[in-house]
Amino acid sequence: MIKSSEYLRVRYSETDQMGFVYYGNYAQYLEIGRVVLMKKIGISYREMEEEGIAMPVRDLNITYRKAATYDDEIRVDCEVREMPESKMLFHYKVYREETILIEASTTLLFMDIATKKLCKPPQFLLAKMKPFFS
Amino acid sequence: MIKSSEYLRVRYSETDQMGFVYYGNYAQYLEIGRVVLMKKIGISYREMEEEGIAMPVRDLNITYRKAATYDDEIRVDCEVREMPESKMLFHYKVYREETILIEASTTLLFMDIATKKLCKPPQFLLAKMKPFFS
Amino acid sequence: MIKSSEYLRVRYSETDQMGFVYYGNYAQYLEIGRVVLMKKIGISYREMEEEGIAMPVRDLNITYRKAATYDDEIRVDCEVREMPESKMLFHYKVYREETILIEASTTLLFMDIATKKLCKPPQFLLAKMKPFFS
Amino acid sequence: MIKSSEYLRVRYSETDQMGFVYYGNYAQYLEIGRVVLMKKIGISYREMEEEGIAMPVRDLNITYRKAATYDDEIRVDCEVREMPESKMLFHYKVYREETILIEASTTLLFMDIATKKLCKPPQFLLAKMKPFFS
Repeated sequence: MIKSSEYLRVRYSETDQMGFVYYGNYAQYLEIGRVVLMKKIGISYREMEEEGIAMPVRDLNITYRKAATYDDEIRVDCEVREMPESKMLFHYKVYREETILIEASTTLLFMDIATKKLCKPPQFLLAKMKPFFS
Repeated sequence: MIKSSEYLRVRYSETDQMGFVYYGNYAQYLEIGRVVLMKKIGISYREMEEEGIAMPVRDLNITYRKAATYDDEIRVDCEVREMPESKMLFHYKVYREETILIEASTTLLFMDIATKKLCKPPQFLLAKMKPFFS
Repeated sequence: MIKSSEYLRVRYSETDQMGFVYYGNYAQYLEIGRVVLMKKIGISYREMEEEGIAMPVRDLNITYRKAATYDDEIRVDCEVREMPESKMLFHYKVYREETILIEASTTLLFMDIATKKLCKPPQFLLAKMKPFFS
Repeated sequence: MIKSSEYLRVRYSETDQMGFVYYGNYAQYLEIGRVVLMKKIGISYREMEEEGIAMPVRDLNITYRKAATYDDEIRVDCEVREMPESKMLFHYKVYREETILIEASTTLLFMDIATKKLCKPPQFLLAKMKPFFS
């Protein structure tokens, strides 16, 4: 299993008039969570795109338990529980101190940027991930 | 059943460097879809909040099939298939012409804004919805 | 002079916890205003990028007079007062009914997407604009 | 004079299809810059709103020199050069290493949240700021 944690502070722009973080903005927090997880295994998502592989999102699922508010410090925990085959599954929990705010998962695919076609996960990704699963 | 459709045009700000609409921005399209559905049954979400009832999102699920791109005209179809009890379930499909882009669902709760406590759906909402289900 | 108007409805996601549209979100409204102005002269900004010319923003100036709130219908008026040389200047006023909400201006440049270098305005743009200034 | 600096990393969601940070998203960076400056003088903007004073933006001016791209680490420098009377003026420069990306300024007003009327800067703010200007 691969795990990562990242701390973020809620921005004013992320709130809505209900006084909470707008429900769609959590997608940004999840994106940051998985980028940090990938950095942990030695992969820069930026370089991956520069190498010609993008990772479009196929599925997004979020359950909202408590609302985050402006200036909260939140922690985005991210996990990958298995080696990717055609898709890569990320699990997330977002906390404010001990309080769980949301639980989420996303499935990402691999796409060859030049052809815009789906493809297999690149070897350099698999090679970096393997040590975490043996 | 209650159904609604709304046409939107993709904004430049909604794209990301992959050249597609950023995956989190579809949450905004869904929000517009359900506001339009509620207007169809004679409920202004704005007035509902002014009456003291907000509808926070409890669950969000999206499956992404095809990507929307800048300046696309897209159609957000929204459906409510049953009367709400403690929660209200919305189903969505977003199209560009005949092509389905995403399928989604959200579960929304009812919250008393003054107390920030969950509550039952207000009577004026149930009264407006009933004719659609008999 | 070239003038255009476009009506928009404020989205929930565009508000912040002050209960108003977040100040940075007006940039999106301005972008829509200028895209509509360009459509009026027969230019699709999307096609312009497909032709290899992008228009990055060089300067943005906004004076905020009154706040827009959720579900407001607002009107984005946009004007171009002179033929572009190296830059193209847009003036904007955003209204809710008779009330002016913001006044703004932006200066845009022309960039060759392939080389990422600044360039002159393309001939097809100048040709379409000329009739408005004679 | 009061000065602050804050480091941020550009999010994927902040880019647009040109491959750069969307021009409107810099407003969020500026907001973070001024919140950090205020923390430096011992004022939490969150607490200020809880005390009943909001600071709506009156003017925004940005000159874009170079574009920020995904995953860039950027530094938001913020300065206040004089004690506020009815308004408070912030100056900003945003850098990626030694390269200046944008220069900006904003004028903010003070608003009594209860009455939604403009007001004078609160005494606790002036008291905290004074030592920096003597």
